[in-house]
Amino acid sequence: MKKNKTTNSRRKFLKTAALGTGALAIGASTLAAPAITAERKEIIMVMTWPENFPGLGVGAARFAKRVTEMSGGRLNVTLYPAGKRVGAFDSFDHVASGKAQIYHGAEYYWTAKDPAYGYFCTVPFGLTYSEMNAWIRWGGGQQLWDELAGKYDLKAFMCGNTGVQSGGWFRKQIKSPADFKGLKIRMPGLGGQMMTKLGASVVSLPGGQIYENLMNGNIDATEWVGPFADEFMKFYEATKYLYTAGVHEPGSMLSIGCNKTWFSSLSKADQLLIEAAASMENDVMMAEFLAKNGAALTRLKKNQGVQVLSFNNRVFDAMGKAANEVFKDVTANSAMAKKVHDSFVAARNEIGGYYSVSDIAYLQQRNRVLGL
Amino acid sequence: MKKNKTTNSRRKFLKTAALGTGALAIGASTLAAPAITAERKEIIMVMTWPENFPGLGVGAARFAKRVTEMSGGRLNVTLYPAGKRVGAFDSFDHVASGKAQIYHGAEYYWTAKDPAYGYFCTVPFGLTYSEMNAWIRWGGGQQLWDELAGKYDLKAFMCGNTGVQSGGWFRKQIKSPADFKGLKIRMPGLGGQMMTKLGASVVSLPGGQIYENLMNGNIDATEWVGPFADEFMKFYEATKYLYTAGVHEPGSMLSIGCNKTWFSSLSKADQLLIEAAASMENDVMMAEFLAKNGAALTRLKKNQGVQVLSFNNRVFDAMGKAANEVFKDVTANSAMAKKVHDSFVAARNEIGGYYSVSDIAYLQQRNRVLGL
Repeated sequence: MKKNKTTNSRRKFLKTAALGTGALAIGASTLAAPAITAERKEIIMVMTWPENFPGLGVGAARFAKRVTEMSGGRLNVTLYPAGKRVGAFDSFDHVASGKAQIYHGAEYYWTAKDPAYGYFCTVPFGLTYSEMNAWIRWGGGQQLWDELAGKYDLKAFMCGNTGVQSGGWFRKQIKSPADFKGLKIRMPGLGGQMMTKLGASVVSLPGGQIYENLMNGNIDATEWVGPFADEFMKFYEATKYLYTAGVHEPGSMLSIGCNKTWFSSLSKADQLLIEAAASMENDVMMAEFLAKNGAALTRLKKNQGVQVLSFNNRVFDAMGKAANEVFKDVTANSAMAKKVHDSFVAARNEIGGYYSVSDIAYLQQRNRVLGL
Repeated sequence: MKKNKTTNSRRKFLKTAALGTGALAIGASTLAAPAITAERKEIIMVMTWPENFPGLGVGAARFAKRVTEMSGGRLNVTLYPAGKRVGAFDSFDHVASGKAQIYHGAEYYWTAKDPAYGYFCTVPFGLTYSEMNAWIRWGGGQQLWDELAGKYDLKAFMCGNTGVQSGGWFRKQIKSPADFKGLKIRMPGLGGQMMTKLGASVVSLPGGQIYENLMNGNIDATEWVGPFADEFMKFYEATKYLYTAGVHEPGSMLSIGCNKTWFSSLSKADQLLIEAAASMENDVMMAEFLAKNGAALTRLKKNQGVQVLSFNNRVFDAMGKAANEVFKDVTANSAMAKKVHDSFVAARNEIGGYYSVSDIAYLQQRNRVLGL
């Protein structure tokens, strides 16, 4: 997904991202008049995505609409796409300071606040969708997230997931770890740091600029999301080599962050309503990506001549070694990140280990028997 | 999971199942007084599980409590465990006829109404949790479910999942498909029919009677759910052979069924509230099973000396062949089942096929690299 580190590229992204024409009014005009108009609350929501952005922006808007409709218009959410009220990456400060009530985004955008934030979106060799839900809900993840977000007067909930992201689009094939040396690749977050350890030259580029840079050879490779979202970006016009199943973002969780002072002022019922709407979107978005990726991959192969490739074991092993070095850096720089990392690793061992004899074993056998 | 075919065993199950002491009052007594008491609606909910039944009954109660609390007590749900108001398997008729408003159960309990119902819980070689969500939400599954349930004046939503169920507990090891011949095994639904095709003698037994029958050798094998739920049943006292990753129930979806006439009479807001509460429980229950299975499997191995085994490829191949024969029987007997089967198979091909190059590939590599 997108992430911008420099002010310059960030400014360009926000310009590019500003596709919308203004705030999306998820108003109550088409709803029955609320029974208790006195209680009506106006909620300002900002997001890190452009209006109607496939998967992510569409999902955030669906959440906003659901809160408004579930409350009979009593909780009236007005959603501002990136750049319309504040820039995408100013969403955090805007909500933390109480100038808006809710943001929708990816928590790994806030690692400059604390590297621990990366774990509440995705990290290399991290958790898949169901595993993440298990850690957050039952493995102590939400408590740690509350502790972290609470420092900024925020309260966050899961609200979407991309699933396992593709390894990326490469202008030349990757046959050994040595092929990463000197490779100019666009990859955000800890995945990008992992690539740096492998000798790649990691580039920071906003979503709207990747296509042109891949086309003209300024970069050799890029990751984005997966077949459904990547098809929309037309990377297949620059290269036909698509590596599936990357390890850099194995289930990027999206989330809402609520201003905590405001959230605490709501009734218990309204707090639960917002939590349930977020929880539903968590699954609806994941289901949309999953339902659409298969068909998109088929179209990419059949209509665009894309070659679907996999990294080999040596490449995965090198990535594993590099990821461990990244985790050492991250946990050395933040006591909170160390605490979160330890909880995350415990969950990965226990839940991920069980997966070997449950989901992985079943799915392998099913797809083998059925020839899928 | 449990299913009873004979009146006799069913009566016994209900007796056994009646562990509770009465209706679970999920009342609003501890909540602030509802703002609009005039609108308050009493909702009677029945379920196919005993009170406090691990995973399943606990999840249904969590859903009931959430609806009450999210509505500020306006939608006041009173939950009756199996046998307290009606028998577990009378829940469907009770709600369809409008004597209660909501049931919680597993749709494959209603295959006597129409074999198509099996697909809305789980079938052999079927969909895992995320795949099921994708089919129901984006692949036409909910529309077919609405068509089926609508025939009985019901409207159903996803509301829980067990994840991939274990292959079962066997008193002797299964080394080839021939080992199933004459084997007395307890397995419900289409999985049981698959076993019959393999020459097994399939027994119908309620949950409360499995332990004693496995102990005294009346049955040679049983499936239940997975390590977390199975540990509670103490099957390890009868045999140490636990086969993980079965194909008979690869992601059993639980659900609520609402009386449709009643549901349609609710405001759009209240309809969405119930749907969101069910959607949240869908994920919370799945996450609980997943979070607890790993630790339970470790305890079973370490504390009870359980041997964790896997079926081999020849056994899986034979199961695949048998499952196909079962599907032929099922689709030949119901036009609705045929229609649902075709939609299900299309989703399995497209979504399941994509899994081979996404989740399966990633998880295999992650667990290989990390040694999980």
